[in-house]
Amino acid sequence: MAENPDNSGTPETPEVTGADPATYTVAVIGGTGPQGKGLGYRFARHGHTVILGSRAAEKAETVAAEVTERLGGLDGAGAVSGATNEDAVAAASVVLLAVPYDGHDELVAALDLAGRTVISCVNPLAFDQRGAHGRVIDGGEGSAAESAQRLAPEAVVVGAFHNVSAVGLWSEEDYLDEDVIVVGDSVEAKQVAIDLAASVTGRPGVDGGKLRLARVLEPFTAVLISINRKYKAHSGIRVTGLGGH
Amino acid sequence: MAENPDNSGTPETPEVTGADPATYTVAVIGGTGPQGKGLGYRFARHGHTVILGSRAAEKAETVAAEVTERLGGLDGAGAVSGATNEDAVAAASVVLLAVPYDGHDELVAALDLAGRTVISCVNPLAFDQRGAHGRVIDGGEGSAAESAQRLAPEAVVVGAFHNVSAVGLWSEEDYLDEDVIVVGDSVEAKQVAIDLAASVTGRPGVDGGKLRLARVLEPFTAVLISINRKYKAHSGIRVTGLGGH
Repeated sequence: MAENPDNSGTPETPEVTGADPATYTVAVIGGTGPQGKGLGYRFARHGHTVILGSRAAEKAETVAAEVTERLGGLDGAGAVSGATNEDAVAAASVVLLAVPYDGHDELVAALDLAGRTVISCVNPLAFDQRGAHGRVIDGGEGSAAESAQRLAPEAVVVGAFHNVSAVGLWSEEDYLDEDVIVVGDSVEAKQVAIDLAASVTGRPGVDGGKLRLARVLEPFTAVLISINRKYKAHSGIRVTGLGGH
Repeated sequence: MAENPDNSGTPETPEVTGADPATYTVAVIGGTGPQGKGLGYRFARHGHTVILGSRAAEKAETVAAEVTERLGGLDGAGAVSGATNEDAVAAASVVLLAVPYDGHDELVAALDLAGRTVISCVNPLAFDQRGAHGRVIDGGEGSAAESAQRLAPEAVVVGAFHNVSAVGLWSEEDYLDEDVIVVGDSVEAKQVAIDLAASVTGRPGVDGGKLRLARVLEPFTAVLISINRKYKAHSGIRVTGLGGH
C-alpha cells in the first residue's frame, strides 16, 4: 500500500526496497490503553512486530494475548508480545509513546530511549464544563512531543497518530477513513511513522512539517472530541488536495 | 444544501425557513486580499450580498468590479460592492474579518461591531527558516478570534474559514473538497458561518466547539502550508466519520 505513492502510473524502474514495505519492531509504551492497544493491533495486522509495554509485564502480556486472539492467526501478521516498558524499549528500534499526558515527562525521563525512533501520539488535553481543550505547555511554545525530545536528546522524536480514534482502531474496518499527519525534524524518523500509518489508513502518512507543529496536532484532538459530542460520531480528518500522495 | 442536516430521512414537518437557505449581507473586512476576495466571490455566487471593505473605498470598488465580472451575470448571484471598512460594517449584519494578524487588534478596536455576527478567519502565523508556525497569543491562552471578541464585546465572534486556500476559492471548481470547521460560544452565530460554508464546500460547516478552540484552527494553517510546500499542493482538510452531517 505504500508503493508508488506519487501515483505516477507504472514505474519504469523497480522499487529499491522490493515489493514489501519496510517492517518494524515497535515498542508501544502505554500499550494496554485503548490508543496503544489499537495501534499495536493495526501495526501487527500489517506484519510489524509489536511489543506492548506496561508498568507490569503481566498486564501487558494479558493485553498482548487479547490482541493476538483478535488477529485470529491472520496470514502475515506480526507477533504481539507484552513486557515491561523497559524491556519493550530494549527490544525495539521504534518506540510509540501512547501514554496519558499526566506523568508523561517522568515516564519518558526514566526510559533509555537513546538511538530509538520515538513516535509520540500523546494528547495533552484538559476537560471542563466547556468541553475539551489543549493544555498550555511551556507558555504555548511547547508540546508533549517536544518535551519528549528534550528529555531524550539521544532519541529522534516525531509526532503522529494523535487524531485516530481508538474505537476505529479496534473495529472490524480494514482501514480508517482518515489521514495520519506526521511532524518531526528528521526526514528518516518521519518516514518510519509515514510507513506505519499505512497500517491504519491504507496509505502513507502525510508529512506535516517540523516537530514544533505538534503544538497544533496535539490539541486538534480537542476539536475532534467536540465534533464527536455534537454529532454523536467518531470523527477524523483527511488531508485533501494531495492527489495520490 | 443546509436542509436536513441530521440526515434523518424525510422530515415530517416542513422546514421553518422554507426551501431556500438563509441569505446574508456580509461585510468582508480585508476584502481586497486574496482570502477575503475569494470568500466574497463564493458567498455572492450562492446568493449572499457582499460588501468588500478596505481602508480606501476606491480600491474596494475596483476589486468588487473584478468579482462582479467573474460572477459573469450568474443567475441568483448576490450583489458585490465596495466600500470603506466602516461603511461596509454599517450596512451588514455579518462581518467577515479577513485581515492580516499584523494590525488586527487596532483595526478591530476601531470598528463599530456592536450587534454584528463577526466571523474571524484570521491566521496569526509567523515564518522563519524552519517554515510556518503559529504565533503565540496571550501565552498560549488566546487566539485572534478571542482577541476580536474581547475588543468587540457587543459583537458575537465565531472562528471559521481559516484553512481554505485562496487559490481554490478563486478557481473554477464548483466547490472545494474541504470542510469548514466553525467554533464559537453562540449557537446562532455559529449557524451563520455553518450556512455560509455551504457556499464554499457544498455542504454545511462543521460545528467544532467553543471559541477558545480557535487556538487550534488558526495555527493549523501552518501545518497545511508545510504540507503544500512538501507536496507542491493546495491542501485542505475534511472531517470524516460524520455521515451526512
